[in-house]
Amino acid sequence: MKGKPLASIVSAGLSKFGKMEGLYGRELFAQAAKEAYERCPNLDPKKDIQALFIGHMGESYEHQGHTGATAADWAGLTPIAALRTEAACASSGVALRVGIMAILSGMYDVVMVGGVEKMTHRTTPEVTEFLAMASDFPFEQWHGITFPGLYALMATAHMHMYGTTEEQLAHISVKNHYNGSLNPKAHMQKVVTLEKALSSRVIAWPLKLYDCSLITDGASCLILTRPELAKKYTDMPVHIIGTGHACDTIGIYERESYTTLKAAKLAAKQAYEMAGVSPKDIDVAEVHDCFTIAEIIAYEDLGFCEEGMGGRLAESGETRLDGRLPVNTSGGLKAKGHPVGATGTAQAYEIYLQLTDQADKRQVKDAAIGLSHNVGGSGATATVHIYRRE
Amino acid sequence: MKGKPLASIVSAGLSKFGKMEGLYGRELFAQAAKEAYERCPNLDPKKDIQALFIGHMGESYEHQGHTGATAADWAGLTPIAALRTEAACASSGVALRVGIMAILSGMYDVVMVGGVEKMTHRTTPEVTEFLAMASDFPFEQWHGITFPGLYALMATAHMHMYGTTEEQLAHISVKNHYNGSLNPKAHMQKVVTLEKALSSRVIAWPLKLYDCSLITDGASCLILTRPELAKKYTDMPVHIIGTGHACDTIGIYERESYTTLKAAKLAAKQAYEMAGVSPKDIDVAEVHDCFTIAEIIAYEDLGFCEEGMGGRLAESGETRLDGRLPVNTSGGLKAKGHPVGATGTAQAYEIYLQLTDQADKRQVKDAAIGLSHNVGGSGATATVHIYRRE
Repeated sequence: MKGKPLASIVSAGLSKFGKMEGLYGRELFAQAAKEAYERCPNLDPKKDIQALFIGHMGESYEHQGHTGATAADWAGLTPIAALRTEAACASSGVALRVGIMAILSGMYDVVMVGGVEKMTHRTTPEVTEFLAMASDFPFEQWHGITFPGLYALMATAHMHMYGTTEEQLAHISVKNHYNGSLNPKAHMQKVVTLEKALSSRVIAWPLKLYDCSLITDGASCLILTRPELAKKYTDMPVHIIGTGHACDTIGIYERESYTTLKAAKLAAKQAYEMAGVSPKDIDVAEVHDCFTIAEIIAYEDLGFCEEGMGGRLAESGETRLDGRLPVNTSGGLKAKGHPVGATGTAQAYEIYLQLTDQADKRQVKDAAIGLSHNVGGSGATATVHIYRRE
Repeated sequence: MKGKPLASIVSAGLSKFGKMEGLYGRELFAQAAKEAYERCPNLDPKKDIQALFIGHMGESYEHQGHTGATAADWAGLTPIAALRTEAACASSGVALRVGIMAILSGMYDVVMVGGVEKMTHRTTPEVTEFLAMASDFPFEQWHGITFPGLYALMATAHMHMYGTTEEQLAHISVKNHYNGSLNPKAHMQKVVTLEKALSSRVIAWPLKLYDCSLITDGASCLILTRPELAKKYTDMPVHIIGTGHACDTIGIYERESYTTLKAAKLAAKQAYEMAGVSPKDIDVAEVHDCFTIAEIIAYEDLGFCEEGMGGRLAESGETRLDGRLPVNTSGGLKAKGHPVGATGTAQAYEIYLQLTDQADKRQVKDAAIGLSHNVGGSGATATVHIYRRE
């Protein structure tokens, strides 16, 4: 068996994703925690869980910071050590990374990691403004560019360099919406045709409405323990065997390339080396499809195909649920939704389900090794994690 | 020698604290990093530093989140792993804690921890609103209470229960302003008399202007390594021998007591036990004096005196620079200033100076063991760290 476990996931929870009117983010986190507790009857949360690391991107949405203490309280865990991590849309990818370090440090036996964001009660211009804080204030925000615009720059560069097409982008959307239609917790649970995706209104050319992820409310969590303690809590742990985390300049204008995310490539390299696996060993992956072009670039950065071939991989069908390497079986950020702070650990939640045969209609048969890829901003932060079945 | 080192500080840096017009927070952090680099010529930052954990409380001040990647870039460290931690005013206290775990995890040999906040370009109502996000939105902010009001509740309760007086509160202010007058990096470097403090205008009775900490710009950082590697970088490392971190409800209304911070008591207990020391062993301490009453409560929570006796300890002079246990030799949040995200590691910076005989006019002779105490919000988060001289 490949890969020495760094930490083991013994349970996981996910709130319903969508427009969750009348609930605070903390209440969504309590939903996620409750599922994780119910899934793991051998665990006594109040007694066993010793720390909480929670990703949360923006205090502006709910005029509420201090997310660590608040979420710990609503999950019934006060007075344990709790803190918030932030790295834009990779806020809970880095929370997971901190959780792994916390376990490896020997300071804790059992920790919870997770993420939360409540967004839909805000207007679209407000959300656009709050999300923009993940880009550079003096050199990007100030000049009026927003995230669809930044990713559109990447898309046009990719089209120019590699001949990537609007149809190839739309294939990502169609695939992820199909997967979302099988996920009862997804924000959007309906299939989308290629024609519909291609004829949707332009947001920032070539990105159309169906190339963009959703503004969503949601929360997610995982319970981690030392591998040697995992069997105390469950017969079906999932082992984290690789973790990678790297950064790049916050401003896209300073990067060496617009068509690849250096931080993601570095994080993937670290994770693969640590896990002792290569891209061809991955059976199922959740990647950061904030825009369809981001999933195409992820294919390349993660080594699922050669540089420039991401568009062709998308249209080949190989990353569909019935393909050789299913990607974003949950529906991804595109269809499951993208409550930004919750996304990193929501990706890990899906991999946990897949590697414990709990993914129901979207189960990938015999999936043994999974990967999650979480990106912050236009790529200034990336984390990659690799998991294996018990 | 007491206390097995968890991690060792091999260098530290602090920007000038004050009203730093025309600079972004990232530039203040670069100042702090530059000092840390210059102080440690044996370290090659780009080659040696492998991760950055940075406390930052509010993205609203500069309309800028994603602080990890940005600060790493301005400190010349891209593409290392970087992330922001947030726990209100304990944002960099928890960053330090994450840094210690990162070292103990074996994942990194050398990491930087720090904090940053740029506040003074905002109006006082704006700062008041942004700080309020550290309190509870539905049950505190919504009803109009702000931080001076929350701490005033604690002060009046303390006065009622223990006979603490306005004069005792003012003694904290006079002491910390005196210490600040000896610190060339402090925001306010002038002495204040008891009369002046007592006659200053009321902010939220019994707290007057001179009972409140300052709205300040600043940044701080530490470079940590594994204890066995410390001598490679410096002849004068400072060893971290204890760390504690606990939380409480975000809302003060749910607490068992208004006159003690349970999270701080728990964090102190953890840190003392880990370090194998007791309060009487502490030679110098930096405590979280966001308001004068907070320093009095800290004396009690940290075991520097019996519960209820903090006011008397303040007026006794024992915590002055020439007393038996000097507290807030830097000037504290009161006079050095309180750039919220930077405060936790700025406290550690002062202890580092004291335990390496670099504190100049405010040097505590033969200080061997130091402590820092960092509080978030009205006490929903607290961290305590204990340090010893090489």
